[in-house]
Parts: sequence; structure tokens; C-alpha cells
Amino acid sequence: MRLFRFGPKGQEKPGVLINGQHKDCSEYFEDWNHVFFNNNGLNELRSLIAEKEDNLPDTPPNARFSSCVSRPHMLMCIGLNYSDHAAESGMEPPEEPVIFQKSTSAVQGPFDDVIIPKNSTHTDWEVELGIVIGQNALYLESPESAKSHIAGYCISHDVSEREFQIQRSGQWTKGKSCPTFNPLGPYLCPAEEIGDVNNLAMELKVNGTVKQSGNTKDMIFNAHFLVYYLSQFMLLEAGDVLSTGTPAGVGSGMNPPQYLQNGDVVELSIDKLGKQKQTFVAYKD
Amino acid sequence: MRLFRFGPKGQEKPGVLINGQHKDCSEYFEDWNHVFFNNNGLNELRSLIAEKEDNLPDTPPNARFSSCVSRPHMLMCIGLNYSDHAAESGMEPPEEPVIFQKSTSAVQGPFDDVIIPKNSTHTDWEVELGIVIGQNALYLESPESAKSHIAGYCISHDVSEREFQIQRSGQWTKGKSCPTFNPLGPYLCPAEEIGDVNNLAMELKVNGTVKQSGNTKDMIFNAHFLVYYLSQFMLLEAGDVLSTGTPAGVGSGMNPPQYLQNGDVVELSIDKLGKQKQTFVAYKD
Repeated sequence: MRLFRFGPKGQEKPGVLINGQHKDCSEYFEDWNHVFFNNNGLNELRSLIAEKEDNLPDTPPNARFSSCVSRPHMLMCIGLNYSDHAAESGMEPPEEPVIFQKSTSAVQGPFDDVIIPKNSTHTDWEVELGIVIGQNALYLESPESAKSHIAGYCISHDVSEREFQIQRSGQWTKGKSCPTFNPLGPYLCPAEEIGDVNNLAMELKVNGTVKQSGNTKDMIFNAHFLVYYLSQFMLLEAGDVLSTGTPAGVGSGMNPPQYLQNGDVVELSIDKLGKQKQTFVAYKD
Repeated sequence: MRLFRFGPKGQEKPGVLINGQHKDCSEYFEDWNHVFFNNNGLNELRSLIAEKEDNLPDTPPNARFSSCVSRPHMLMCIGLNYSDHAAESGMEPPEEPVIFQKSTSAVQGPFDDVIIPKNSTHTDWEVELGIVIGQNALYLESPESAKSHIAGYCISHDVSEREFQIQRSGQWTKGKSCPTFNPLGPYLCPAEEIGDVNNLAMELKVNGTVKQSGNTKDMIFNAHFLVYYLSQFMLLEAGDVLSTGTPAGVGSGMNPPQYLQNGDVVELSIDKLGKQKQTFVAYKD
């Protein structure tokens, strides 16, 4: 099964993909949110499907896909987590994970337009594996123990404005938090169904041309380690999202650099997690 | 009037201080939160007080003070915003505001114990003026126009772990987001009642000894400019909290550096905003 959310902005409902069918779960669950994950909701959902599968209603045709989980308390990101991307950024691979936050107001659906911010000239792309926390975590004992605190995985597009991020007085969140800068989804794949999370191919195209082609096996710090590591510094809450870094091939690493323009179309895919597609549009007053 | 929240953790209720009396507003308002601020709640509260002043119930004696606003969507902080603190940190004053995020799970009441994190040896203090956003803001036209988007002000204790922040592979959020690391309150002073926000004395003591003694007039970037500036990069939402930087006198700037130990007591005050007092206690498994 895969979890998704559908419907107009502000009126999203929870859904589940089973046997190729998009089913509406809103009669049984309020949302795929903190309360759902923290109260063993995934197991309840599995029980519901076992009981009702043929009787769950279909979602409306052509419904909008929203972010696959509701707005989290925290959007934490890992920087420079692929050695080839660190190299293209002119940075050394870090000794410990580099982390930064994006504002959660940036979360949106996987097919919604992304707004190139006002006064932006350096809007860039980053395909990333997203981890959704399944159970509150603080001071986990090992990467192994992190496994039971992960609900599942999704595509996270860590859209970035490089001038805001790098050239406007330090700390990356400034170039990461613009409205629409974090498409999430379309699907959350439960951890039990992902297979080997450390071997998922990922790709990003701009206007049909492949720009990033990577695999989670090339992460410097893998998904289980990252959840363990972060829990040594802060509380991770059920429903929180961690974006785990991007492989080489971002626009700022090219020679000359290439940034997104009004009308550009970006497509992202990761094994087992589906595809995203966004049109980038210039901000209008 | 001053707004506060009272009651046990997880069961907080909204209250208001008028004429030296702590009054319970929970019959009329759910909480001092995003919905309250974004729907002109401060004016509704003023009307309620005009109508009911003598009939609002008192809060229970000795009720716990919680954070003065409910958990925000975003806790954004300004770094190095006092030139004397930048100097003691060995940094140049920034050309533009330096910003970083704290995890919102760190918010707590102004008199609750602060937990020195597991494996921490460099836990430090920072008294700061907190701004509470009163109305969603994006791309404000000027610092002047920011005034109508500020609900009010409070004390924000930006507790910091310097080894986590500086020595553990880049980006400050790692040393800023530990549980209990952001006492807020006790009081929110509405913007209309603060007087000159650019001339508020602030002080922090450790075990009775003054460590920080500053004034908001020494901010490099003032409160109105900061709200205007941040709105050029991201959506500021009603109820969000901005911590505006700390003056000189933090423990890491001393020679030799001084960090907080189990049992240390820290007291903070800012003109018109009341006082905070926390005991720092070592983490126990």
C-alpha cells in the first residue's frame, strides 16, 4: 500500500493506493498527521484495508495530489550527504551530518506549481529521499533502533535559492524556506514495503533532460543512521519529515551554473515512491 | 494588558493580566495561537475586557505559567544582531541579518526547568527580545509596514549548546533545538503597549550575578526591519516567533568560557515583559 492525500488546498483528505486503485479513507481517518502516526495508525490502516478493501470508496477522478503527509512540526534537511554533490559544491564531505531546517510553510503537493520567489535569480533543484517519522524519538540507542521510529519514505523536492542560501549572510534556511519550496509525495511508502532503503535509484529531469541520476546507496550517512543521529540533539516527532540530501547534478554545480526560469518543468522520481512534476513560474505581485 | 497562558503541560489555557490581576479567558478563547492572532483576536480580547473586566474569573493561585503563546509554526532566530556579541563570538557584524531556526518542540514555560542535554558540556544562555507575528506577512513593502504585522513582544531565552552549534559540522540549528531550549514569556505585551521597542533594557543573571546587560537600542537590525526583511524570503505566519539576537555576555564569550551546570539558576528580564527564572538540571536517563 501507499498513502497519499488528495483534494483542494486546505481541504485535503487521506487516501491509500491498493492494487492500483486510489481509495478514500476519510470516513475512517482524519488525516495522515502527527496523531495518526503516533497512535499506531499505520497498523489500524492495514486492518481497515484487510476488512474493507473492496468497499472503500474511490477518490474523485483527477483529484489534486497534496503532500503525502500533513504539514509536519519540523522539516529537517541533511546537507552534503552525497560525496559527489559535496564536491560539486566545493565542500569537503562532512565528518558528521550537516543539518538545517526549512520552514514548514513551504510544504506543498507534488504536482503544484513552484513559485520562483520575488527577486530570485538562482532557483535550483534537489531530488531527495524523504523520511517520515513514525514514533517520537529522542536519544535512540543505535541506528538499528531507529528502524522502528520510521513510518516510511517519500520523494522530497528540496527547492533552493542559492543566492539567498549562500550569498546573503550565512545559514542556509534563508534560501530554503520560500513558499512552495518543498513538494512532498505523491506517495508515502511504509518502511516495511520499501525493501532496501539503501539501494533506491533516483532521478531528476529539467525540461526532459536528466540532470541528477543517483542512488541512495551513495549516501554518506544512511537513513537509519540519520534518524539515530538527529535524535541525539532534538526530539523527532511522529509525522516530522527529514530530507536526506541530494546527489550531484544541481544547477549551481554546472559550468556555467544553470537556474530555473519561468515555464521550466522539473520531474523527479525515486524507486517505489512514484514521480513528481512541477512547472516553475515567476512570482507575480 | 498582558497575555499569558497557564496550567499544566498539555492543558494550557489563555489568560490576561489586567490591573495587576491574572484573569482566565478560557471561556471566551481557545488559545493564544495562530487562529487567534490571524482573526483579529487581540481586538476581540480588548472588547471582552472592556465588557467583562470585573467578571472574568481569576486564574488558580500558583498556576504554572506556560509559554505566553501556543507552540508556533516557526521559531526563527537572528544571529549576531548586537555588535558587542558578534565581537565576543569572534565574528564580524553581518551585512544582512543572519537567521537560523530552532525546532518548535523546544518551546516551554518561563519558569520550567531547562534540561542540560545528554552529552552536553557547553550549555549557554542568551536573553532575547521575542517578536510574535500578528498577521501573515510575505513581501512587506517596508519596515514601517511591518508594524501592523506584529502582535507583540515577549522574553525569549535562546538556550544554546555551543559544541553542538559550532563544533559538530556546521549550521547552528543543531545546538539550538534541544528539548526545553526555548522558554517564552511569561507575558506577551501587545505592540500598542510596548512604547519604544527600540529602547528596552534587558538583563540576564546566573546564580544572582549579572552576565548580560543590554538594550534593544543596540540591535544592528531593529524589530520592524527584521520582520520586513524576513518576509522577503518566507511566509511569516500569525503566531510565529522571532528571537532577535542577544547582547554581549554569553558564557562562551568569557575568558575562560563558563557553561551551565546542574543546579544553576538563570534569571532574565526585559522592560515591560516581566521576568523568567529557570533552574538548569542535568539530563537523566
